[in-house]
Formats: sequence, structure tokens, C-alpha cells
Amino acid sequence: MLLEQIKNPNDIKNIDAKDYEALAEEIRQFLIQSISVTGGHLGSNLGAVELTMALHLSLNLPEDKIIWDVGHQSYTHKLLTGRRDGFTTLRQYHGLSGFPKRKESSCDAFDTGHSSTSISAGLGLAKARDIQGGENTIVSVIGDGSLTGGMAYEALNNAAKLDTNFIVVLNDNNMSISENVGGVSKYLNNIRTADGYLGLKKGIYDALLGTKHGDNMVSGLRRAKNSVKQLVIPGMLFEDMGLTYLGPVDGHDMKGLLRILKEAKRVKGAVLVHVLTQKGKGFAPAEKHPARFHGAEPFEIETGLPSKPRNKANYTDIFSTVMCKLGQRDEKVVAITAAMPDGTGLKRFRNMYPDRFFDVGIAEEHAVTFAAGLAAGGLKPIVAIYSSFLQRAYDQILHDVCIQNLPVVFAIDRAGIVGSDGETHQGIFDLSFLSSIPGMTVCAPKNKWELSDMLKFAVKLEAPIAIRYPRGEAYDGLKDYREPIEYGKAEWIYKEQDIALFAVGSMVKTGEAVYAALKEKGYQVSLINSRFVKPIDEEAVKAAARSHSIIVTMEENVASGGFGEKVLAYLQKEGLSCEFISVAIPDAYVEHGNVEVLKKEIGLDSESIVKTIIQRME
Amino acid sequence: MLLEQIKNPNDIKNIDAKDYEALAEEIRQFLIQSISVTGGHLGSNLGAVELTMALHLSLNLPEDKIIWDVGHQSYTHKLLTGRRDGFTTLRQYHGLSGFPKRKESSCDAFDTGHSSTSISAGLGLAKARDIQGGENTIVSVIGDGSLTGGMAYEALNNAAKLDTNFIVVLNDNNMSISENVGGVSKYLNNIRTADGYLGLKKGIYDALLGTKHGDNMVSGLRRAKNSVKQLVIPGMLFEDMGLTYLGPVDGHDMKGLLRILKEAKRVKGAVLVHVLTQKGKGFAPAEKHPARFHGAEPFEIETGLPSKPRNKANYTDIFSTVMCKLGQRDEKVVAITAAMPDGTGLKRFRNMYPDRFFDVGIAEEHAVTFAAGLAAGGLKPIVAIYSSFLQRAYDQILHDVCIQNLPVVFAIDRAGIVGSDGETHQGIFDLSFLSSIPGMTVCAPKNKWELSDMLKFAVKLEAPIAIRYPRGEAYDGLKDYREPIEYGKAEWIYKEQDIALFAVGSMVKTGEAVYAALKEKGYQVSLINSRFVKPIDEEAVKAAARSHSIIVTMEENVASGGFGEKVLAYLQKEGLSCEFISVAIPDAYVEHGNVEVLKKEIGLDSESIVKTIIQRME
Repeated sequence: MLLEQIKNPNDIKNIDAKDYEALAEEIRQFLIQSISVTGGHLGSNLGAVELTMALHLSLNLPEDKIIWDVGHQSYTHKLLTGRRDGFTTLRQYHGLSGFPKRKESSCDAFDTGHSSTSISAGLGLAKARDIQGGENTIVSVIGDGSLTGGMAYEALNNAAKLDTNFIVVLNDNNMSISENVGGVSKYLNNIRTADGYLGLKKGIYDALLGTKHGDNMVSGLRRAKNSVKQLVIPGMLFEDMGLTYLGPVDGHDMKGLLRILKEAKRVKGAVLVHVLTQKGKGFAPAEKHPARFHGAEPFEIETGLPSKPRNKANYTDIFSTVMCKLGQRDEKVVAITAAMPDGTGLKRFRNMYPDRFFDVGIAEEHAVTFAAGLAAGGLKPIVAIYSSFLQRAYDQILHDVCIQNLPVVFAIDRAGIVGSDGETHQGIFDLSFLSSIPGMTVCAPKNKWELSDMLKFAVKLEAPIAIRYPRGEAYDGLKDYREPIEYGKAEWIYKEQDIALFAVGSMVKTGEAVYAALKEKGYQVSLINSRFVKPIDEEAVKAAARSHSIIVTMEENVASGGFGEKVLAYLQKEGLSCEFISVAIPDAYVEHGNVEVLKKEIGLDSESIVKTIIQRME
Repeated sequence: MLLEQIKNPNDIKNIDAKDYEALAEEIRQFLIQSISVTGGHLGSNLGAVELTMALHLSLNLPEDKIIWDVGHQSYTHKLLTGRRDGFTTLRQYHGLSGFPKRKESSCDAFDTGHSSTSISAGLGLAKARDIQGGENTIVSVIGDGSLTGGMAYEALNNAAKLDTNFIVVLNDNNMSISENVGGVSKYLNNIRTADGYLGLKKGIYDALLGTKHGDNMVSGLRRAKNSVKQLVIPGMLFEDMGLTYLGPVDGHDMKGLLRILKEAKRVKGAVLVHVLTQKGKGFAPAEKHPARFHGAEPFEIETGLPSKPRNKANYTDIFSTVMCKLGQRDEKVVAITAAMPDGTGLKRFRNMYPDRFFDVGIAEEHAVTFAAGLAAGGLKPIVAIYSSFLQRAYDQILHDVCIQNLPVVFAIDRAGIVGSDGETHQGIFDLSFLSSIPGMTVCAPKNKWELSDMLKFAVKLEAPIAIRYPRGEAYDGLKDYREPIEYGKAEWIYKEQDIALFAVGSMVKTGEAVYAALKEKGYQVSLINSRFVKPIDEEAVKAAARSHSIIVTMEENVASGGFGEKVLAYLQKEGLSCEFISVAIPDAYVEHGNVEVLKKEIGLDSESIVKTIIQRME
């Protein structure tokens, strides 16, 4: 096996060129096998095998730096830097991360996770090199999907000015997680399919580069007036922005890749290398259903079907269904996603109401202000963005939606601990950053019926409101507790005394277990579904404080700025003396791993909570 | 006077075309007179006089919508919509806002303040119109500076796909607040100065449009193959992104403006109209020093000099001086600004160390991740961004700087109440959003010497740290209190008993007044300069709780997630029973006005604080 010969960075350089194809095939088989067992990102990794090999052959790691945008396509990079054994523990607690991590390897130059950061980071590394007199090569690898993110453009715009040697590899698979959208995507597609590529341009180029003074002539062409260049050179959009454009090149052709990377290293200044790849390459089900194999659960290799089919609906399914109902009921309801029609569950709404559905690309900032515009124009927009990605739009929520009190509904999936994606994807800050914003209402449902009720409530509110709910299976307990949603009002599930548990969203389910365990120990316990995090239900808190000896708040969010601090501030302000425990996520990032394991680790499981309460009671 | 004939929206349409020039001159004189007394944004407004007149003549307000990016250039728009009398109260409490406000006029279609939001908002209004079957015209007016912001690009990228009639007016004055930077700016400049504009292109264009079938021929040209278009039509970058490009046109030539806007309204889909204007046009000092007259204090018209010269240094000056020293002392120190070399005080550093200074354009997201890259490459970056603009980079601070624990220093000017710019510019959320981030250190200096000490401390910290300080005059009291900065440690200014005042940054000065007033009433008072907001000095809080009957926290930040909640949470956790008052900004936006007036209004002045404390003590 060729792969066995690769134990350290740069070992790939000992492989014979004639074996590159075989090595690529081995890597693909390894990835398919391995991910079929552990789950993980498949499609993007299968698409980037040859590109990663070519980069490792062209560069000298770890002196040279590769920054992987988003980073979920770095599996081959991990294989080629001696981390093959780690793949059995991929995305498990204390196991191999699914993303680049500086802590994991000196060959991981910069941690990534969210989209569109790699060009900024790469430029920083390049200027740090210049200032300190280094000569190493810096490469940022960015997908065409990530290129729809505004900060990638901010960085490209800055690259031209910085006058530094720097390579951007545009890994263009014509996809983000779902199909790609927007003007630039269309532009790239035009290059992809242009006559120029197969015909005129390729001919001239290849002919020139094959001759003695070919390089000079190509540079001469590049220096020619724009109007002439346009005739033979694609990628003028990038050249107009001040970068040198090379490509496009077939991203599965090792010779072509090695040649273009060699050329890129010779170019002075910032250069963009346009590489055409196929997502899911080499695994038929992934080629066919790229969205499904973006981040895959364990699957059967023969069929591509999940190993453990889901039985229960998750919150995304519920959201999906309710959105279709809302769309039918009210023609003013419109839906916005930032490149996640599948992940957010908006695909069905899109199919039913294509004119009222907007996929704006990986562009959370625009998504939110666009929604503000839709609301200012009289519609009822629902913006569906994952919790950790919504961090990108903090200013837009504050500045464009809430100052004007515009009725935008934020449907925040993946709120709380998300598990295997780790630090960058945990949705554990939203209660804090949203609560700091005047005019914002923040709530969280206890179970699947309440998500439905809250969405219906939100659409009628005529003010900004956020509903956050976790990844995975929707809780279907407490079916009989379905009091109509009332603004700012909590719901009493069990009303006793001694201990009052105020639980936020997903923690109501945990609260049930805590309730049961405490009852068994002989305590009287109230369980309150807080429903609203902002504003808190002051009456309920006051009532609880008066009839209980201790109030416990429980939330899947960092403590700082969260629900607990708000309840405590109210208790204090009102001079309500009663014991108080805030159960929240400590002030530290939460790594990847199984959700239940992680919750135990940070004390968010029912056992830990019960222990803490009993300690305090004694 | 022509201006007196304009009392309501659309009244400008009654003015004779031959008088447009005279009206423009009257408007300019009015603006210069008025702003010389009240202060306000001058340069951008003088540059946009004819453009605004042309828009008002071409549109029908309020049915048609104009969205002013940033919004400080909307003064002529306010004049033309009947708000002339308001200018005597410009930017004063309860007076005319310096920005568009939907609350102020039905002709203000969307509130703005921060940069680069207008295209997103305009697209939202356009689609809302489409869905509801309207036919009005939507125009977003964006400066070339704002075009460096990523969300403007996200929106342009989306515009092509949305297939809606929508006009973007690019008000290109070749400036943001300072000189403009980056590839796109260079590209626009090429258009501005290209032979094509004055020669070939203008000739062909004008000739064609003058003829019978000229319009058709121009559209024909537009539909031609890109390679041919490039020869005669500038703006291919925008055409490549899927917009129709019209221009460039002289932004001070009413005829040209009216003609191009007429053409723009006829174009189907999204169209970008490129208008060339001069910032400060018509007022020599502003033409000469555009940065100084961006946001001007009251000035003498004859000389352009400030009416009240400043005597004392402000915090920006201190920062400016210290940065030069740090730069000299340590070659690894580099500085980053997002289009604010003047405002942040980094101009002197730029002049001394041009290779270690980076102006990345209005691109806060890129600025922060670029700094993270510089830090990962071994340098010590200091990022200077105003508090309210740093909201844009919340995710980048959390995701790119703090997860990797990179030593980036954030120098946060304009933190707290900034006054006359109002809601959008108050820097009253930073303590909350920064404190929610694991691994972040947050501090604030009490006076000018402490800002210097903190910066020196921060550069050595080797971890992410933010220093926030207010707009305006630097406090130069308490000179003798200059204990060396120690990580996480507060500074006791007066150590007595009864009442313990924990003040954050600017509130130490207020704390002095509170101290004096309480002493006069016979109380024993301690004043503690908290220095660190994250982490709080737990020892100091504990000590204070044990020897005082009440702890009062004071901060220029919203209560939610701020310093007070952190202190209270600690007191509670440790079971330290003692009275507690949190003085912070209530959960509401703070409008424009004089800083002292606003502080009184929200209870942040010493009198209100003393009153609150005494009430509680009794």
C-alpha cells in the first residue's frame, strides 16, 4: 500500500510520479471506508484529493503554509502529514478533529471552521513573513462557495494593495453545501464552460508555455491592456481586482496541477489559481447527492444509505413543516437562508414557494440586512441561520433589524452543543449576544410542538424575535403541556416548592430528569419552562423566589450574558433573597465529541446538576 | 431664495432647470453656514448636492425609495424633504438626526449609520415590492469607500441572481473618510482616469445616444460578447458580477445625472450607475482637507479652523503617541485600521513605520482575521477599531483570534456614549459581546496615563486583549495613582468602608464626583478602579464585600452581559451577602445628543448615581 509509506510530512515526495493516480485512489478508498464508520465530511474531501497531493508535492511543510478555508476538506492533508491512525477517532471526544488545528500538527497553519476566513489569515501570514524577512510560500485554499462570503472579498480587495507573494487556490466545485448562487458563481461557471478554456485560450497558452520564450510571452500578455487580455485570458474579474489569474485547470489532473502551482510560485504578488474539481469524486452516491454527503452520518458503502436510519423527527424537520404551513397561511411570509436550504430545512418551502424563498449564498451579514429590507417593505421574513454562523451578523441584527424594530424572525438551528464539529460550531453564545441587543426578543422551545407554536407566535409579533433550538432529534415528551404562548411568559410544568428549576429550551428535557431524581431523594420540586430568555418572566421568578428556597437556572449557553445572569440580576434588584444556582457552560470553548459526553464533561447533564443542587441544599 | 420654495418632498420639481445651479449653490452655502455652527458631516454632503437633487427630480418620494449608505451624506435629502428648520438642532438631543431615520420622515426609507448596508436593504425593499406587485423605484446610494465592505459585495453578488429592477448609485469620490484603498478602488480609479472615459468611450456613447436608434445600439453593445464590450465599456467588473454598468458620469453635472438616471430606470434588472463626485466640493478648506471635514466640529467659515480649539489631549492622541513608542521599541508591533488612519490616531504610526501599518479599507471582518494571521506569523498586531464598528467582527474575534489564543490587541476608541452620531454609533455593547468570548481579556483605563500603561501591558500579554476608551478629552486627573498594571487586578483609589464604588474606565472620573458627594453627606466611601472587566478582580470584590455594606458597579455599557452582572454573579456564587447596585445603560438604544445630557438622561451622571445610592442606603 502506497499510503503506508506516508508517515510524516513530505513523505509523499518519495512516491513515484507514475503512482500518483494509484495513491489518489488509495486515499479515496481510505476516506470512504473510514468516514462510512465514523461519519464526517466526505464530498469535499473526495474532491480535493489530487489538489492536496499537488500542494504537498509543491510545498515544503511546515515551513510553507496552507490555510484551508472552512477546513472540512483537510482530511487528505491530515493523511499526508502522518495522522492516518487518528481517523478511527475522527470527531470523537479527544480524538482527531474534523478541522485543521494548530494544536494537532505544526502543518496546520491556521484553525478554520467558519467560511471565508482563509484569504485574510493567509495575507496576515504572508505579511508577517515579509516583515521578518522570510521566503516561505503561503497558500490559502478556498472553495467557490466560500467566495460568496463578504470577508473573502474584503481580503481579495486588500491583497492587491499589500504587494506580497501569496497564492489563493480557488477550489471551484460549483457548489457550496448546496448549489452555489449569485453573480460571481455564474461568472465562474462561464469560465468553466467557456470556449476559451477548451479552445482558443488553452491553445495559445499551452503553445506559448511549450516554447523557449513562452513564459515571457505569457507575462507579456498579462501585462497587455485589459481590453486585449479579455480576448484570451479568463478571470478578468480577479485581474480587475489586482490579482494575477491562472487557470482554470482540471483539479483531478496531477500534471496540470503541478505545472500551474509551479507557475503560481513564480508570480510576484497575489495570484489566484482557479482549480476545477468535482465534489464527491470517486464515490457514486456522493457525486449524485453532494448535499447529503457533505457532512455524513455513518453509512453503508454499497448503498450510500445511513447505517442507522433516523426514527424520530429532528427540530429541522419540524421547522421545515411549519414553514410550509406558514407560507400557505400568509403570503407575506418569506424565507431566507445563507447557503443552507438543506441544512435549515427550507428546501420544502423553496419548492412550494420559490418566489418567496431566498438563498443568498454564504453571506450571513447580507442575509440579515436583506431580511430587514424585506421587513421594511412590508413582508414577514424568517431568516434561518445556524447559531454559530449567526455570530457573523451580530452587528446587522443590532444595527439594521433592531434599531428600526423590524419584524424579522430568526430561526436559529444548531443552538447549544452540536457535538462532532467542535469549538467553531458550538452554538453556545447566541443567548448572550442576542440578549445584549435592545428590542430583541429571545426564546427557545422545550419540545417539537412548542417550536411550532413559537414560530406561529413569532410571525405575528411585529418585532424582532429569535427562536433557538438544538441540533438533532426533537424532544417529543411533555406533549400535554401546551399552554398558548404568551409574550414573556414562562410555563409551569410542575408546581411544588423547595427547589425551582428554570430551564431554557433543550434543558427542559434535562430538567425532567433532574426533577425525577430530586423527587426520588424526597425533595419538592417545581419545573418551569422559561420559554423566553429575553425578556425573562419576572412574575414567575418572583413567585418562585417566594415559595422556594432555591432557584436553579439551566441553559445550554455560556454563563456570561446568559439567562442565569438575567434572573440573578432581577432577584437582586427586587431584593428577593433565595439561594441561586446557575447551570451554564463555563467560560471556555467546547471541543468536538459526542453531545452527551460533552454535556457530562461540562456539567450540563442531569446527574451533575442533581449533585450540585443536593450539595447546596445540604 | 430658491431653497425657501422647497417645503415638501417633490417641491424641487417646481424649480426651473436653469436655476439648478443656483439652487445647488444655495444648498452648499446653507450647509456650510449651518454646519459651521452645529458641527456635523460636511465633506460628503457638499459632494452629493447635485446627485441628491437629480435623484429627487428623477424619483417620486416617498413612493420611490432612496437608501443612503452610512447616511451621513443625507443632509441635502433632508433639505429637499422639508427639514430645513431642523438644521439648527442638528445632532442635538431630540433634534434633527445626522442620519436618515424612518421615524423622522416617510422619505427616509431605511435607517443607516454603519457602512455597506444599503445594497442589502435596497434589494430587500425591491423584492418586497415585487412580491406585492408594486412598481416603484428603489435606489441605494453607496460610496466607493463603503464598497470595500464585504457585505456590499455579498449584496451585489446576490443582486444578479434576484432578477429585480434595482438601481445602485456608486457615489465615487475616491475617498472613504481618508484615502481609499484596495484593488477595487484602484480599478475604479482606472475607470475615472481612463482614456475611454474622456475619449473613445464617451465619444461613442454620446454620439450613439444622440442619434435616433442610439439607445438600441447602446443596448446592443451591452449585449455583445464580453471581449468586445471591454473595448468600449468600462465597469466590466460589475458586468462580470451580473449587473448592468452605466457611467461614469460627472456627479456635478445635472444634465448628465438626469440623463443617466433616466436610462437607469429603463434598464431591467440590477444596474450600477457610476457617479464621480468631489468630496467637500465648493468649500476650499474641505476640498483640501477632506478627512478633517468629514465629521467636523463647529468651525470658522473664513479659515476653516475649529471655533473652539482643543486644549487637552484626547484618548486618540494618547493612543497615537504610545503607538509610535511601541513601534520604536519592538519591531514586531504592527498596526491595523479599517479605513480610519486619522480617526484612530494611527496616522503618525503610518508615517513612521509604513511597512508595519495596514489600512485594509472599511472591512472590519478582514481586519481582525488578517490580524490573527499576522499574530499566527509571530507579530504583535494592534487592531484599532471604534467600538460600534467592532460589532461587525464579533465572529472573527471569537472564531479566528480567541479560539487559537492569538496575541491580538484591540484598541477600541469611541467606547461608551459618543454623543451626536446617535444610536448607530454608541459604543455601549463591547463589554458584553467581548466578555462572552472565552479567552478574551477586557480592560479600560481610568485616565490618559493608564491608557499608555495598559497598551504596554497588552503588547506583552501574548493573548487576546481589548482596551476600550471613550471619545473625546482624556481624563488627566488621578495622576498620582499609577500602580503597575497587574493581570486581572483592580486598583484601590480610596479605601474606606460603607460604600464600595467599582468603576470601569471612564466611570472612574464620575466615581470621583460620586465619592466627593457621598463624603459630603458623611458616608465612608471606597473608590476602586476596576481596570479589568474580564476577568473581574475577585479578590477585590470579596474584600469589598466583607468591609462594605454596599457594592456599586458603574460602567458605560448596557447592563446585559456587562461588568455589573459579572460582579453580582461572583458575589452570589461565593455567598457574599452585601447590598448591590449596578449602574449601567438601560436596555434601550441611546439617541444622539450632547454626551453629558445623554448621561443624565440614562442615569449615568454622578448626581443620579448619588441619588440612587443614598436612596438604597436609607
